[in-house]
Amino acid sequence: MSSERLIYLPLGGAGEIGMNCYVYGYGPQDKERLIVVDLGVTFPDMDTTPGVDLILPDIEWLVARKDRIEAIFITHAHEDHIGALGHLWGRLAAPVYARAFTAHIGRLKLEEHGIDPGTIQTTSPWPVVTQVGPFKVGFLPVSHSVPESSSLVIDCPAGRIVHTGDFKLDETPVVGEPFDRAVWAEVAKPGIRALVCDSTNVFSAHPGRSESSVGGEIERLIKSASGVFAATTFASNIARVKTLAMAGQRAGRSVVLLGRAMRRMVTAGIETGILADFPSVVSPEDAASIPRENLMLLTTGSQGERRAATAQLSRGKYLGLQLKEGDTFLFSSKTIPGNERSVGRIVNNFSEMGVDVVDDSTDRYHVSGHANRPDLLAMHDLTDPQMVIPMHGEHRHLRAHAKLAGEGNRASVIAPNGTMLDLSGNAPKIAEFVEAGRSYVDGAVQIGALDGVVRDRIRLALNGHVLATVIIDEDGEMLGNPWCETMGLADRGRSNTPLVDVLEHDLGQAMGRAKARTLADDDALEDLSRKTIRKSAMDEIGKKPEVTVVVSRLS
Amino acid sequence: MSSERLIYLPLGGAGEIGMNCYVYGYGPQDKERLIVVDLGVTFPDMDTTPGVDLILPDIEWLVARKDRIEAIFITHAHEDHIGALGHLWGRLAAPVYARAFTAHIGRLKLEEHGIDPGTIQTTSPWPVVTQVGPFKVGFLPVSHSVPESSSLVIDCPAGRIVHTGDFKLDETPVVGEPFDRAVWAEVAKPGIRALVCDSTNVFSAHPGRSESSVGGEIERLIKSASGVFAATTFASNIARVKTLAMAGQRAGRSVVLLGRAMRRMVTAGIETGILADFPSVVSPEDAASIPRENLMLLTTGSQGERRAATAQLSRGKYLGLQLKEGDTFLFSSKTIPGNERSVGRIVNNFSEMGVDVVDDSTDRYHVSGHANRPDLLAMHDLTDPQMVIPMHGEHRHLRAHAKLAGEGNRASVIAPNGTMLDLSGNAPKIAEFVEAGRSYVDGAVQIGALDGVVRDRIRLALNGHVLATVIIDEDGEMLGNPWCETMGLADRGRSNTPLVDVLEHDLGQAMGRAKARTLADDDALEDLSRKTIRKSAMDEIGKKPEVTVVVSRLS
Repeated sequence: MSSERLIYLPLGGAGEIGMNCYVYGYGPQDKERLIVVDLGVTFPDMDTTPGVDLILPDIEWLVARKDRIEAIFITHAHEDHIGALGHLWGRLAAPVYARAFTAHIGRLKLEEHGIDPGTIQTTSPWPVVTQVGPFKVGFLPVSHSVPESSSLVIDCPAGRIVHTGDFKLDETPVVGEPFDRAVWAEVAKPGIRALVCDSTNVFSAHPGRSESSVGGEIERLIKSASGVFAATTFASNIARVKTLAMAGQRAGRSVVLLGRAMRRMVTAGIETGILADFPSVVSPEDAASIPRENLMLLTTGSQGERRAATAQLSRGKYLGLQLKEGDTFLFSSKTIPGNERSVGRIVNNFSEMGVDVVDDSTDRYHVSGHANRPDLLAMHDLTDPQMVIPMHGEHRHLRAHAKLAGEGNRASVIAPNGTMLDLSGNAPKIAEFVEAGRSYVDGAVQIGALDGVVRDRIRLALNGHVLATVIIDEDGEMLGNPWCETMGLADRGRSNTPLVDVLEHDLGQAMGRAKARTLADDDALEDLSRKTIRKSAMDEIGKKPEVTVVVSRLS
Repeated sequence: MSSERLIYLPLGGAGEIGMNCYVYGYGPQDKERLIVVDLGVTFPDMDTTPGVDLILPDIEWLVARKDRIEAIFITHAHEDHIGALGHLWGRLAAPVYARAFTAHIGRLKLEEHGIDPGTIQTTSPWPVVTQVGPFKVGFLPVSHSVPESSSLVIDCPAGRIVHTGDFKLDETPVVGEPFDRAVWAEVAKPGIRALVCDSTNVFSAHPGRSESSVGGEIERLIKSASGVFAATTFASNIARVKTLAMAGQRAGRSVVLLGRAMRRMVTAGIETGILADFPSVVSPEDAASIPRENLMLLTTGSQGERRAATAQLSRGKYLGLQLKEGDTFLFSSKTIPGNERSVGRIVNNFSEMGVDVVDDSTDRYHVSGHANRPDLLAMHDLTDPQMVIPMHGEHRHLRAHAKLAGEGNRASVIAPNGTMLDLSGNAPKIAEFVEAGRSYVDGAVQIGALDGVVRDRIRLALNGHVLATVIIDEDGEMLGNPWCETMGLADRGRSNTPLVDVLEHDLGQAMGRAKARTLADDDALEDLSRKTIRKSAMDEIGKKPEVTVVVSRLS
């Protein structure tokens, strides 16, 4: 038995949808040479991460083994696969490999962080491979909702791994390479040890539809519309952006791109040759002179993002353009769970303007970029791996996918973030559990998810805040009365006296009764003040606020 | 032409799903005698209403016309129709009418607020009517997901109004009265001036299914399960609770009720005779001695509520009971938009335990309590009203419902909260716009939605908080150094010095440079401090926190 082993360790993306980050290693135990696949982000929400800008995987484990990292591979240009590159690269400082379009987006991110964009090396697709340490890695084209998405074929002395990345089986994908069964069969021929496989759509029972199936439907919809026709989708879904623009063009409309991401992605697509035949667009200013029924707007913000073009249009004018009674707005997108309320708000705003909104409920104007359940089975069969490791999914997705693999008599295991697997044997074996958390981009700094900073913000939001100041004079006695200020609390409660007056009165009384020993001890004084204020507020308004006590001692 | 008029005014429920509160009036303009239909609540969320306990309609308009209110009618016992009764009754003090089951629930609410439960008068169903001022009001049974739901037949000299309340067309509803077309046809015979109609499911294209269609499916599912079978639904959906319990019983399982609301609703159902044939239940303690495969748990918390039985079970033990590998959990409910994340968290927790979760995605184990689009059309046809006023829906629902009515050549109008309609003519006419907002139950007090209290909490959550204290001595000079405390902010930023040190340093410098005039003026001093701290924090951590400045002057 060899003393070398092949390991797999998800640091993000397994146990959640988003924030993808996976590690593979080969070598003697604890001396494995490592490669990193993807460095993605996930997005904050008010419930759990108020005020946070972006959520990154915790890469402490990698940083501690920095000298063992051979390279970073990015499968495609979605934020949940590439979004953390600029934020985290500095701590890993390993070479980055990606295909041209992905590299283009990645370089913009590095530049924003003052990192040499030359750090990313553009790689040609399979059968070209890159040798890094004990690994040979090839980018095998797959269809997904962003150009040049790739699975990785990872060869090492222990065998071949296929890491699917995000994928669907689309033989007519509008933009980018069609899924090519022949090439995949070729890759599978020598035998695949492990298929590490996207689980996002494991609960979708029907085979996925091709991107090419939506263009005609959208064209019919545009032709039946009378006023302005506007549509939103993810800007990075370049195939859809093209599908929409082409349908608009065929329906005799001039296309206007609204929103920075939309313009940036189309520009990137044109510059990298992927969107060579994209219809010419008109600027928002020129749109003013075009009859409304000849206009098509393509907007950012399909998930209801407050500052994006869609939300702004729903609140009124955006760059001089405004929707009104009789116009149509299409969501050519799926609402990601958790965004229903923000999207609903926009739909209701449009409704108040008299705009007809068409959403994805009919399933006609949108198709998913991920493989559905039958497509996953087809992928298992096509690659015929010794084991299937479900990734990119919440726990329930991983579980359903592992079950699916089991039904096909393939070895499988549920490995959420932090679960290190040894893939060297006949079946995946849990080798170790590693701490795998999250860190937050918060303004200009990164903070740990467990630092307590965000927990304090949530408490402030739920409970409100009272500040109390007490001044102790040279003789150790209270000088004047305590002073309170409140934030996020009702002005007055049961007694109908201003709340601050009640708090100051009760705190003053408590101080008056306090022993000299208590007044002399900052901790005791703060503790007494906090308890007094919380009790007083509870009696008065039925809430226990967060309390900050400042004791000033004159000396 | 008569100088009397018939008015309709939604104060809640029109422009939202939830918080139902409608007013009808008849009489000379501004002297109309009024009746109120429903006093419901809606629920807070972290995005817009952190820390709030409950959201009530703003009833200022009614309070100002209190002497003109004849009565309050409650259509059914759902929180979004009856939940505000205890909170708001005191300000209206009018007699309340409801059918027995609704009255039972309403009295519990009044008692919680120290109000005489005798205030609610139990009313028999149509053809019995209650005369209040110029109105005769009858409770016409409809099917919905709580017992004794009723539409109101409201007669006045201007004609007959039918206010549907929440309803579906179910001729085999398991609990309560089947929808009786003959009686409805009878009611419609004299001619209906206006149908004021539920819009919740206007986007559901297929005819609704009967409650009786789910029992068999659930029974099959239970029989196929090996370990404990647990299921959740809204406790108030007594028909479903019964459907589940009966299916469990048929499958040879003992039923355990978990959660206060579940026990309370079943008790209310048994006491009012509605659940006379409910299977006998076993206590959680006795369940311990029953084999797992013979147990069925019915739990509260289908929407992922953190403290409900379902969430607690998903985190571990609840009253000594614990789910494990091989058990099954059924969501016999629809996830309300906005609750997807909380429900998802529970599903993933169960997945980690190895519990099989069955949700509503198959549409087999749940049916809605509201009329779908074809059912709404059937209701329009059955009642054949002169006009249709869509209610209970977001703006998009009201709009789609008004359009549907228009397609049937019936007069209609979109009337969101605060839109007073004059229904005296041939078509609804907008008479006036009235201020109609929300108020919040926050701990023990009610606060206005626009008071700024909740806005401050959201700011605290997004931006964090800095408190600064400055002491000015008898001579008008700063005593010692300023003192800062932070909450919800990173400990340190770009300079890697503790953030409070940086803030105190910068504030000290600014104070040192300040003119005597500034130091003498509290407002100027606070303003300078706030600006200095926000700029300093922005430079250091990239965030502009909320700042409270306390100036203490020794004298």
